Amino acid sequence: MSERVFINEVAPRDGFQIEPGFVPTADKIALIDALSPLGFAGIEVTSFTSPKAIPNLADADRVMAGIDRTPGVSYIALVPNALGVARALAAGTDELNFVMSASDSHGRANLRLTAADSLARFAAMADTGRAAGARLNVSISTAFGCPFEGPVDPARVRDIVARIAALGIHGVTLCDTTGMANPRQVAALCRELIAAWPRLELTLHLHNTRGMGLANALAGFEAGVTRFDAALGGLGGCPFAPGATGNVCSEDLVHMFEQMGVATGVDLDALLRVARDLPALVGHEVPGQVAKAGTAERRHPLPDGVG
Amino acid sequence: MSERVFINEVAPRDGFQIEPGFVPTADKIALIDALSPLGFAGIEVTSFTSPKAIPNLADADRVMAGIDRTPGVSYIALVPNALGVARALAAGTDELNFVMSASDSHGRANLRLTAADSLARFAAMADTGRAAGARLNVSISTAFGCPFEGPVDPARVRDIVARIAALGIHGVTLCDTTGMANPRQVAALCRELIAAWPRLELTLHLHNTRGMGLANALAGFEAGVTRFDAALGGLGGCPFAPGATGNVCSEDLVHMFEQMGVATGVDLDALLRVARDLPALVGHEVPGQVAKAGTAERRHPLPDGVG
Repeated sequence: MSERVFINEVAPRDGFQIEPGFVPTADKIALIDALSPLGFAGIEVTSFTSPKAIPNLADADRVMAGIDRTPGVSYIALVPNALGVARALAAGTDELNFVMSASDSHGRANLRLTAADSLARFAAMADTGRAAGARLNVSISTAFGCPFEGPVDPARVRDIVARIAALGIHGVTLCDTTGMANPRQVAALCRELIAAWPRLELTLHLHNTRGMGLANALAGFEAGVTRFDAALGGLGGCPFAPGATGNVCSEDLVHMFEQMGVATGVDLDALLRVARDLPALVGHEVPGQVAKAGTAERRHPLPDGVG
Repeated sequence: MSERVFINEVAPRDGFQIEPGFVPTADKIALIDALSPLGFAGIEVTSFTSPKAIPNLADADRVMAGIDRTPGVSYIALVPNALGVARALAAGTDELNFVMSASDSHGRANLRLTAADSLARFAAMADTGRAAGARLNVSISTAFGCPFEGPVDPARVRDIVARIAALGIHGVTLCDTTGMANPRQVAALCRELIAAWPRLELTLHLHNTRGMGLANALAGFEAGVTRFDAALGGLGGCPFAPGATGNVCSEDLVHMFEQMGVATGVDLDALLRVARDLPALVGHEVPGQVAKAGTAERRHPLPDGVG
């Protein structure tokens, strides 16, 4: 079992894209700059998509160009197509995160592309990215379940991963987009993919929609996964699954691993200070729990009269 | 790995005792009667403590006497002392759940008793309960960590369990009273205790204070635990740890195990109907997530224009 995990902070992209209000560009940049020195492996800064599709991230170019870069941190952008690749590279993105859906209904709803459509576009996008020296990753949405179709056949995901690996892409992220995965399912699929493609970097992107986020992270870790996406405060969600809570919360995930004795590289106390400012930034309470309860290291005073 | 788990519903005791308002006796009875036929192994109905200590459960005798009994369900009461045992037996309690704290500070704050004090009283309490034909269990609060003292030495818990087993008590519940446990800690202690006392029935009582509730349940299950306490809606908390969310949520726990293919015996759809009425009963939102998001079986309609 590995004793080190690597965490990508995705709130600036997966969280802010679904916020009820537009987070001002300067606030986005300030948040990313506050997160940069805290020890994350990567920060998903934004998404180079159509401003019509995701108005909240219409400032993608300005955000990516405006942040301070901490050496060793991979600054990631989600890119759905060749135009996104060009914009992301022009803005100085370190890592291109191509996005597709394992299930065709979700792909059509989210990207107007089936899985086959997306895969057909990735070869040219990968060539462009590789020529520019960018790291390349594919995030597979609905890798465990689709809110329209139900469970997704692991054989389908395996076929998709085979196609991605054949393109010379460095990493794949399995996304439980609407929190449908359970720990056994996560463990089984991750074990299978790690065994088949041991050099492909496998990341888990989990949502806590049904409370299983940390349990799924634990199951993935026990299956050999060492890379996780997470969002500050547990921001995020899915527009097609109302009522759903968001991503696995960064500070809760870091806290769990650190309590288990697994190093994350992240400065948890500093992260909690940033997390505690988040409700003021977004204008509402957020799901993260350690920011409210304090870490397991916290000591409470004895009640009066007990000594 | 066992493929069947047994769940005790503890919201009527561990949830209601800490609610801001007194839940009317008739509402308590109606809720327990709604829960009784749903497949729980046991229901912790109330606590036979001083009404001054826990005013919210001052109606313990009336609640225990007033509920309908479903055959096969163990109706449990928490009892801190000999007077509690007498009251609980008089009200027809099936199972006496003695309570103590692994850490002396918490024991003094909660019960005015050290661990040694509590253990010294249990012999006579157990004799009385056994003579009346009641099942006997001891809940060990702060079994993983104490909000005043910090981590609790597993050797101390092991010594306490040895003393309890020597009294001929049927079961022990390890309580993570303020949500300080992590999955590795849970797995290690459970494995050790199951190996040492294979016939002692071991239950995990977990809180979701720091988001690790289901991850800890998963770790316990993988270590061989098949019995879990949980509270409808995730009610509960700890008066000495403000900001803390409550118990592991019953419907979220049942949902996770059923999704994993592990039988719980609980009718999840019926449980979710009861859970959805809970906010109206207690007058506030509750932490449970599956009641809000729907189960992983839920299908959402495709957006307009996607076919």
